Amino acid sequence: MKRISVFLGLAFVISASLATARADDSLPSWNDGPAKQAIVKFVTSTTTEGSPQFVPPAERIATFDQDGTLWVEHPMYTQVVYALERVPAIVKARPELKNVEPYKTILSGNREAMAKIPMKELNVLLAAAFSGISVEQFRVEVGKWFEAAKDRRWKRPYTELIYQPMLEVMHYLRANGYKTYIVTGGGQDFVRVYAEKVYGIPPEQIVGTMGETKYGYDKEGRPTLMKEPKLLLLDDKTGKPEGIHMMIGRRPHAAFGNTAGDQQMLEYTGAGDGARLMMLVLHDDAKREYAYGPANGLPDSKVGTFSQALFDEAKKKGWTVISMKNDWKQIFSFEE
Amino acid sequence: MKRISVFLGLAFVISASLATARADDSLPSWNDGPAKQAIVKFVTSTTTEGSPQFVPPAERIATFDQDGTLWVEHPMYTQVVYALERVPAIVKARPELKNVEPYKTILSGNREAMAKIPMKELNVLLAAAFSGISVEQFRVEVGKWFEAAKDRRWKRPYTELIYQPMLEVMHYLRANGYKTYIVTGGGQDFVRVYAEKVYGIPPEQIVGTMGETKYGYDKEGRPTLMKEPKLLLLDDKTGKPEGIHMMIGRRPHAAFGNTAGDQQMLEYTGAGDGARLMMLVLHDDAKREYAYGPANGLPDSKVGTFSQALFDEAKKKGWTVISMKNDWKQIFSFEE
Repeated sequence: MKRISVFLGLAFVISASLATARADDSLPSWNDGPAKQAIVKFVTSTTTEGSPQFVPPAERIATFDQDGTLWVEHPMYTQVVYALERVPAIVKARPELKNVEPYKTILSGNREAMAKIPMKELNVLLAAAFSGISVEQFRVEVGKWFEAAKDRRWKRPYTELIYQPMLEVMHYLRANGYKTYIVTGGGQDFVRVYAEKVYGIPPEQIVGTMGETKYGYDKEGRPTLMKEPKLLLLDDKTGKPEGIHMMIGRRPHAAFGNTAGDQQMLEYTGAGDGARLMMLVLHDDAKREYAYGPANGLPDSKVGTFSQALFDEAKKKGWTVISMKNDWKQIFSFEE
Repeated sequence: MKRISVFLGLAFVISASLATARADDSLPSWNDGPAKQAIVKFVTSTTTEGSPQFVPPAERIATFDQDGTLWVEHPMYTQVVYALERVPAIVKARPELKNVEPYKTILSGNREAMAKIPMKELNVLLAAAFSGISVEQFRVEVGKWFEAAKDRRWKRPYTELIYQPMLEVMHYLRANGYKTYIVTGGGQDFVRVYAEKVYGIPPEQIVGTMGETKYGYDKEGRPTLMKEPKLLLLDDKTGKPEGIHMMIGRRPHAAFGNTAGDQQMLEYTGAGDGARLMMLVLHDDAKREYAYGPANGLPDSKVGTFSQALFDEAKKKGWTVISMKNDWKQIFSFEE
């Protein structure tokens, strides 16, 4: 009798570890640890029929911040790099801007002066770079730019600087019936250009900062939508739950971010019933990527503020902090 | 030899009519005619691999106006009925409105005077009825209202006054890989309350008139989204293609409407490459539903303006007009 129960016990151990292995296979770039465990536990408990935390497929929504959560945001948001490189074209079309800030400083090419351009002036530039063009032409221009542009450190297209572990989480969630959304402070139309190819996320699942478009007709009388320089929704901080309600109309069950700009999205997600997963990516790997932010014992930076206050709220509310250094076996797909 | 070819010819005729019959089965409430044929032809040509008009599944988007296209809009838009019935609650919360128009007239109960309330004042009422409440509470209130409210003519809940032939078109499109959206001048959050149950369309696929929401915290410190009386997008006329771009980010391949408010959505849809389906429902069945609008040889009405200009544009551009009287075998599911 004893022998049999030992045998049965062994069989149980083997089948249990097989089940774990199967789930783990979806996340091969993750080290075993609390972050990976939190993801697997959340997916298992919300998708297993009969589980008290089961979530019907239609309600399985997961939202991801982009900059610093899905791809590199340092030393500058990619869309700001794009806007800076659009300056010659903007000034060519509107020569009166040549001596106006921030165009003047940008045209000077003085990198030190450029680094000091205040956020307010950068927003003026972003509005200019993201408007005065039809939605189709914008798609073409941004697409062309991404084909040629390269990050200075890795000498690779920006669309390769995607975090492999986060791609795996998105695939794992989708394989389990979750609809994945990007919820970004970046321009909605900008991210739509590459998101389907890079993340497998279609344009209708990109929630971003939105500007007005204006319906009219081109010279040939064809209907056209022009991008206007008027802001409709700044999809950052409180704008994230607001944008989620507007575009999705449901509360997410999982939300991923990395800065104070994601705080309200995580709060809103966490305030729902049942199992909810809130995660924050901590940039603490100066060697393989970057290390920055006060929560990291490092000075604050212009982008990606993981403040001490956010770190404290995460601890208090049981949000999971992902350490890039400790939780990620591999950061980019191009690593050996 | 002749006998064999006759036999083969017969076999061809039989298999061809079988194929037609199979497609037709999806649209049993439609009479055979140009409208039904246009739908079947569009779906077949855009979903048959190898067809020159094949559309990849990810790009299969179909948009539907709601009022007058999917359900009855006469004598009054359902959301206006809802807003009128909310007046006592609005005035109770804000007694200073009691002597302000349109509240005063509505509280008088004088139907003749109420029918003369100008659209501008009705919009003030709609803004009031659709704001000052959290998104969750709004969902509860509207849901409760729909459970009790009944249309005066049919003595049935408004959610039963759905056009059966249009439900069949939506099912048929979805069965062929199309994503169906409602694109309505009605309130986005209002339609979301019942659209999943009634049309099988989830909240994230409802594009409607949008008001701002404001993220904050309730008395217990829980995150909450309040509906503000500030308009973000009036999803009518030019607002329809603008709303489509904002919420979907792709040009539809098929669009269905019934009034001048849908004209730009159909134009925008038709301006794309390849096969596109543009259809307009004509209300010409006074017996089974209603007959109204100048294109119908009848006076213009406050709601549902199918103008002569729209009728002319439809003819010129090859849009298909659906005659409720001639094309629809059955209008409502509750008919015998």
